[in-house]
Amino acid sequence: MMLFIVLTCFLAGCLAQKPHPCSSPPLLSGDLTVTTQNEKLSTYAKYLYDALGQRVRVMELGTFENKSFTYDALLLYREGAMYEINEHDRTCKKKPLKEDFHPMAIPKDASLMGQVVLGSSSEPGQGLLVNTWTGDLPDKAGKFISTVTEFGCVPVTTVYHTEKFGWMVTSLFNNVLGIPEPDRLNPPGFCLDAEMKVEEQTDFLSLFINKP
Amino acid sequence: MMLFIVLTCFLAGCLAQKPHPCSSPPLLSGDLTVTTQNEKLSTYAKYLYDALGQRVRVMELGTFENKSFTYDALLLYREGAMYEINEHDRTCKKKPLKEDFHPMAIPKDASLMGQVVLGSSSEPGQGLLVNTWTGDLPDKAGKFISTVTEFGCVPVTTVYHTEKFGWMVTSLFNNVLGIPEPDRLNPPGFCLDAEMKVEEQTDFLSLFINKP
Repeated sequence: MMLFIVLTCFLAGCLAQKPHPCSSPPLLSGDLTVTTQNEKLSTYAKYLYDALGQRVRVMELGTFENKSFTYDALLLYREGAMYEINEHDRTCKKKPLKEDFHPMAIPKDASLMGQVVLGSSSEPGQGLLVNTWTGDLPDKAGKFISTVTEFGCVPVTTVYHTEKFGWMVTSLFNNVLGIPEPDRLNPPGFCLDAEMKVEEQTDFLSLFINKP
Repeated sequence: MMLFIVLTCFLAGCLAQKPHPCSSPPLLSGDLTVTTQNEKLSTYAKYLYDALGQRVRVMELGTFENKSFTYDALLLYREGAMYEINEHDRTCKKKPLKEDFHPMAIPKDASLMGQVVLGSSSEPGQGLLVNTWTGDLPDKAGKFISTVTEFGCVPVTTVYHTEKFGWMVTSLFNNVLGIPEPDRLNPPGFCLDAEMKVEEQTDFLSLFINKP
């Protein structure tokens, strides 16, 4: 009888290890790079991500068609507004944000492509267990292939493929749980009198793609 | 005085953490994928790597211009020979191997592009510390960008850029230290009477690129 219980627990343990779609930590910050197939875009950015307050800050340094640019945006999904911030000139543009907030997560209907170890599992500190998932983008706009860590569901790489933009590869790294600079998720003082420009609407992808 | 010693040790510790070019473990096996920019090639392979005996086995399953292929090769650099093995038909082709063995390593004159954490450093098991290096390929044939783990120098991704082939991305994963199937680094019995075909010379890159 004891053996049966032990065996059942063991089997349950094995089954529990099968990867499941997961949600990324609600507070996350770090670095990211974005490269696109057809837009000659290469971007490096620092990001802050707050799924509780539905706020995202992206501070980019990139090149588009071999010209460098900087871009700094704060997206406040609850307000339906985004701020384009120029800290050097202390100027601000406020625009409507047309899309809903999408928390970073593997959708429940995604398909597992595989689980692999980056690096090596032979010694501690030499490997990272990751799961790769694929599925359809919302509104069947295209496909995604997302790799996240098995422990913690931290994003590693996401490849988006859409008719409109071709392949776009986003890699996140140097991620930490939490927000080291919470103040950067609020509009700076010099933004408070910015008026909403209703004629220009924005969504998240276009932060990276419609340059400059 | 004690504080001085502690401070010196602390500083030495910090300096010791600066990444240095490194050699990968001499016995390594795992999986790899190769994708090329201009050849429409996508390969998945199991590999065995023995830098002590200068032997490499690559068992590929790939697609080239949307046609699938399998390819199984054993490279014996000390003998200057390679075997193309068909285990299903128990046939073998033996060819001269023209190039020298290059152990997997970051060359001493490579430049550090950066050190980052894939995943997150906030919790154990969620992150992998890696270093990315760039430099020239031998004979100035092109450039490489190589990412290896900080601990253990295990290869993660290498991007080669050559005039001839464009970009080629090699990713290694599921790596383990050691050779789980040592017998696969010796020619199978049915290969022993294979005669060397001197007219066909091969090098390592062409294992992946000159398909089918």
